[in-house]
Amino acid sequence: MDIATLLGLSTGLTLVLGAIFMGGSLLQFFDVPSLMIVVGGTLASICVTYPFEEVFQAFSAGMKIFASRKVKDGEVVNMMVRIAEISRREGLLALENIQTENAILKKACQLIADNADAGLIRETLRIEIGSMKRRHAVGESVFKSLAGFSPSYGMIGTLIGLIQMLARLDDPKSIGPAMAVAIITTFYGALLSTLFFLPVAGKLRSRTLNETLQLEIIFEGAKCILENNNPRLVYEKLSSFIAPRERRYERRG
Amino acid sequence: MDIATLLGLSTGLTLVLGAIFMGGSLLQFFDVPSLMIVVGGTLASICVTYPFEEVFQAFSAGMKIFASRKVKDGEVVNMMVRIAEISRREGLLALENIQTENAILKKACQLIADNADAGLIRETLRIEIGSMKRRHAVGESVFKSLAGFSPSYGMIGTLIGLIQMLARLDDPKSIGPAMAVAIITTFYGALLSTLFFLPVAGKLRSRTLNETLQLEIIFEGAKCILENNNPRLVYEKLSSFIAPRERRYERRG
Amino acid sequence: MDIATLLGLSTGLTLVLGAIFMGGSLLQFFDVPSLMIVVGGTLASICVTYPFEEVFQAFSAGMKIFASRKVKDGEVVNMMVRIAEISRREGLLALENIQTENAILKKACQLIADNADAGLIRETLRIEIGSMKRRHAVGESVFKSLAGFSPSYGMIGTLIGLIQMLARLDDPKSIGPAMAVAIITTFYGALLSTLFFLPVAGKLRSRTLNETLQLEIIFEGAKCILENNNPRLVYEKLSSFIAPRERRYERRG
Amino acid sequence: MDIATLLGLSTGLTLVLGAIFMGGSLLQFFDVPSLMIVVGGTLASICVTYPFEEVFQAFSAGMKIFASRKVKDGEVVNMMVRIAEISRREGLLALENIQTENAILKKACQLIADNADAGLIRETLRIEIGSMKRRHAVGESVFKSLAGFSPSYGMIGTLIGLIQMLARLDDPKSIGPAMAVAIITTFYGALLSTLFFLPVAGKLRSRTLNETLQLEIIFEGAKCILENNNPRLVYEKLSSFIAPRERRYERRG
Amino acid sequence: MDIATLLGLSTGLTLVLGAIFMGGSLLQFFDVPSLMIVVGGTLASICVTYPFEEVFQAFSAGMKIFASRKVKDGEVVNMMVRIAEISRREGLLALENIQTENAILKKACQLIADNADAGLIRETLRIEIGSMKRRHAVGESVFKSLAGFSPSYGMIGTLIGLIQMLARLDDPKSIGPAMAVAIITTFYGALLSTLFFLPVAGKLRSRTLNETLQLEIIFEGAKCILENNNPRLVYEKLSSFIAPRERRYERRG
Repeated sequence: MDIATLLGLSTGLTLVLGAIFMGGSLLQFFDVPSLMIVVGGTLASICVTYPFEEVFQAFSAGMKIFASRKVKDGEVVNMMVRIAEISRREGLLALENIQTENAILKKACQLIADNADAGLIRETLRIEIGSMKRRHAVGESVFKSLAGFSPSYGMIGTLIGLIQMLARLDDPKSIGPAMAVAIITTFYGALLSTLFFLPVAGKLRSRTLNETLQLEIIFEGAKCILENNNPRLVYEKLSSFIAPRERRYERRG
Repeated sequence: MDIATLLGLSTGLTLVLGAIFMGGSLLQFFDVPSLMIVVGGTLASICVTYPFEEVFQAFSAGMKIFASRKVKDGEVVNMMVRIAEISRREGLLALENIQTENAILKKACQLIADNADAGLIRETLRIEIGSMKRRHAVGESVFKSLAGFSPSYGMIGTLIGLIQMLARLDDPKSIGPAMAVAIITTFYGALLSTLFFLPVAGKLRSRTLNETLQLEIIFEGAKCILENNNPRLVYEKLSSFIAPRERRYERRG
Repeated sequence: MDIATLLGLSTGLTLVLGAIFMGGSLLQFFDVPSLMIVVGGTLASICVTYPFEEVFQAFSAGMKIFASRKVKDGEVVNMMVRIAEISRREGLLALENIQTENAILKKACQLIADNADAGLIRETLRIEIGSMKRRHAVGESVFKSLAGFSPSYGMIGTLIGLIQMLARLDDPKSIGPAMAVAIITTFYGALLSTLFFLPVAGKLRSRTLNETLQLEIIFEGAKCILENNNPRLVYEKLSSFIAPRERRYERRG
Repeated sequence: MDIATLLGLSTGLTLVLGAIFMGGSLLQFFDVPSLMIVVGGTLASICVTYPFEEVFQAFSAGMKIFASRKVKDGEVVNMMVRIAEISRREGLLALENIQTENAILKKACQLIADNADAGLIRETLRIEIGSMKRRHAVGESVFKSLAGFSPSYGMIGTLIGLIQMLARLDDPKSIGPAMAVAIITTFYGALLSTLFFLPVAGKLRSRTLNETLQLEIIFEGAKCILENNNPRLVYEKLSSFIAPRERRYERRG
Repeated sequence: MDIATLLGLSTGLTLVLGAIFMGGSLLQFFDVPSLMIVVGGTLASICVTYPFEEVFQAFSAGMKIFASRKVKDGEVVNMMVRIAEISRREGLLALENIQTENAILKKACQLIADNADAGLIRETLRIEIGSMKRRHAVGESVFKSLAGFSPSYGMIGTLIGLIQMLARLDDPKSIGPAMAVAIITTFYGALLSTLFFLPVAGKLRSRTLNETLQLEIIFEGAKCILENNNPRLVYEKLSSFIAPRERRYERRG
């Protein structure tokens, strides 16, 4: 469970609702047609912008930001060092039996165990990393578009309300409430974009950067194992990927 | 038929028209001079910005977003594996008879069958991919410009209305309706940009990314066939381009 | 004569003037001090931003957007194929006599005829292409800056008018006309930027992309002639630069 | 102590508070609910956008901008020249005893002393530099996001106040003060972004650029020592990194 | 003396002051507290954003835009050709005595005369060019930040004035003048950014591009001299850097 995501969203929502409550009634800020224009319009534009399957993919990725990150960078380094030790002790063929949840590490081990050409292994892993980045980028891109469309529909809703209000300016008393309703769509658009869509896009980006880094560690580790297969040098090189204070030990023996 | 595009456009339009209808008359939002300034002005600026043929090319590309995508990435991978199997069984010359709608794959097969130099094949395919990207980028670029020009003309129309209204401020009763008409151009500009131009530009971009990926698969596949021509290795490498859950089988026995 | 440029500019201007005329008098929108601030200020800032010669260069490039494009990409490909045929039939020395208006193609032919080192030819053409891009980029860059400065001076003019109007708010009747005049500068700034500067910058960019592509064709063609000098292969490679439907024939038998 | 940071922040704050004081009471600009929406909302969105540890990391990096820079570029050059002299006089093994606070220089010396492969040393240092950049970029990125979120929450707060005010427009006398309170959140958002978040992000960026440069000097210096180990040539090359007027002497000898 | 810079700045200022004068008194636009917030605040934020020495460096670079450019690109080409002729006639050692104000050309000549390794010369010049770019980029970057901060402080000042005005809305007569004063800061911010900071940043950028180009000419020239040392080929290659109409003669010989 990623506490920060939950805490951030609930705190933000509480603060905004609290501010509304302190100044009047919450009901005043609830307007179904305004919601329909902003939420419905934003979703409509997203469906034109991206293929259906990418929108689904993005929303299911968006759900995952509540789940906690599983693996630390340091653990990936340690795993690669362990694999180097196994391959040195038991030979490259032993890598076939490595158990891991990371599909790309699994593939790397199998290719090494198959005694595949070093160039092919490198290129295949490069393609895998590129594929992963591309798939992740879709989620970030969809949420960034949502963050762009929602304030636009907020403004479109406000323009509609404004035009209708201005056209019948007979009763000065109705101006205020009509304006208030017109501005609600702008409020919805800004709130959705600032409190939900932009932060979710940001978190998806953080996750992608993190996973990419771990794939880079696996990639460099696999290269090292293929080239000189010395666990100590593998550690020396891979530990450079992580922050100095997280390194197990700067020098081994 | 790309359902998402049609659904998105019709839903968005329905929501906006519904919101207008709920607050008054639709006719109030229909103003010919405003339409002329926003639509006409935007088209005028586009004709100065791009050569005629590129504008036509963009609009005909824009029409195609209603057509559904034909080929899945996985199918391209399978096709390349099949071609590798054919070339292995029957020799490179057999590739001359490969039937495919993809012009670039056709060219790749012919070059391989011609026993052309590997470097020439690589460079020719690179140029083809670059050409395709450049042609597709024109469509996206034109729609992005449309999305930029339309709100600007919306604002220009509103400024014209505002100046005319302010110059004859004698009758306070006329202020409201005059303002309402002035703001309609801003509404048109925002709606065109948010509901049509930006999403179409986005979909064209999605399409380009998708086609580019398939060309990359063809490119890497052709390289593989030229280099070692082992269908299993071709699959091992090309399957890295697609999402893990779409891979036929991770290992072929 | 580039019809699109002329048509776009005249249509845009007609639509805006028509909209003004329909709502009142054209004279209302003509204000000399406002013009001075927006046009004069924009030019003043441009003169500080760029060296004099680059401003002149940009304006003379801006004039050329009314002239029509001379050469099609397909013609450049055909020309390179013809040059390859000549050089094969009559030897590289014959290239000295090639007649062409394209200065870079001329230089390439001379260097090949001189039997210069292939590396030198490649590097020299690369530098030529870079130089051409840099000179063209100046024009686009100046017009983009103009498109940025003109709305800023529009806003500065409106702020001046607003401050003066607010300072003497005694006579409520004078508010409207004073505001109208104040807003005219914003209108000028937006119109200049949207109808002139941005589209001209865009067209210059289109032209540069087009010329760069033709230089790339010349560059690749020259490389091909130096390397294996087979007109059929030269065509096979260079035709990849142009759209499939513009290719003379996909295969020459 | 970085005097500029402290001076800038205190001067900016004094000027703003002074301007408020000259026009009225400071208390008028202090509003707890407004502060809660802007500061609380901004922090809430940041916690969704970045993992907890990156937010902490960014704030602790933000604190360090008050600390003064320790090492000048010229000193790093001199240090590398001294190391080159030591390694020439006493052999590469002597580098093991080099005392330095710079962890990456320490690692470089150890790898050289270990007689590690030149390629491995180069790659390891490249990874170290990349890691350092990535860690530093987090701080800049978080403060840029803060600078983006705070004006958005300012606008959200103002929209809430505006809607509430417009809904009860009975008493014209209450309009002014209600508007004043509504606008305070916009003021908070703009001030936080302009006076704190953007400048801190900028300073973190300056620091990163500076440290990266010093790592580049170390990297090039290590390469030089490995390759030809001539202190004079090391100086000749590394002095190119620093401004001409800061070079000890242009020519030695 | 760079006439364009002076002319631009004075014309822009005259036009703005003229427009103010035509509509009323200049004194109306002079407000010390507003100046303090905008100018003082902008400087305060700059001091936090950049280290002290970089701010000084930027302002001293900003002063130099009034000085005229000294060397034309064509002269640099001719100089390199002359150096090639000298080195051919009198040997590489003669380059030690080349007199030039360009520090990097001086360094290149000395390295060549020293018979240094070609790779070292190339790398050293690359580092010099990178250093020069980095130092110049600081100036542009500082002025771009100034151009960003000044309108922000303009808005902050206006918000302060607005809040104070709205809080005491008793006397309707005071609204106008109070608003006028509040808006003056926005005017200051926009004027400083548009007339000074952005154009100066632009000119610094133009200068950097120009100097970088000349260093590229020196770099390519030095490479040529080292490689084949034929003045005619040096000219043939370097003349590609300059516009065709500025080339002395297209062919010598």
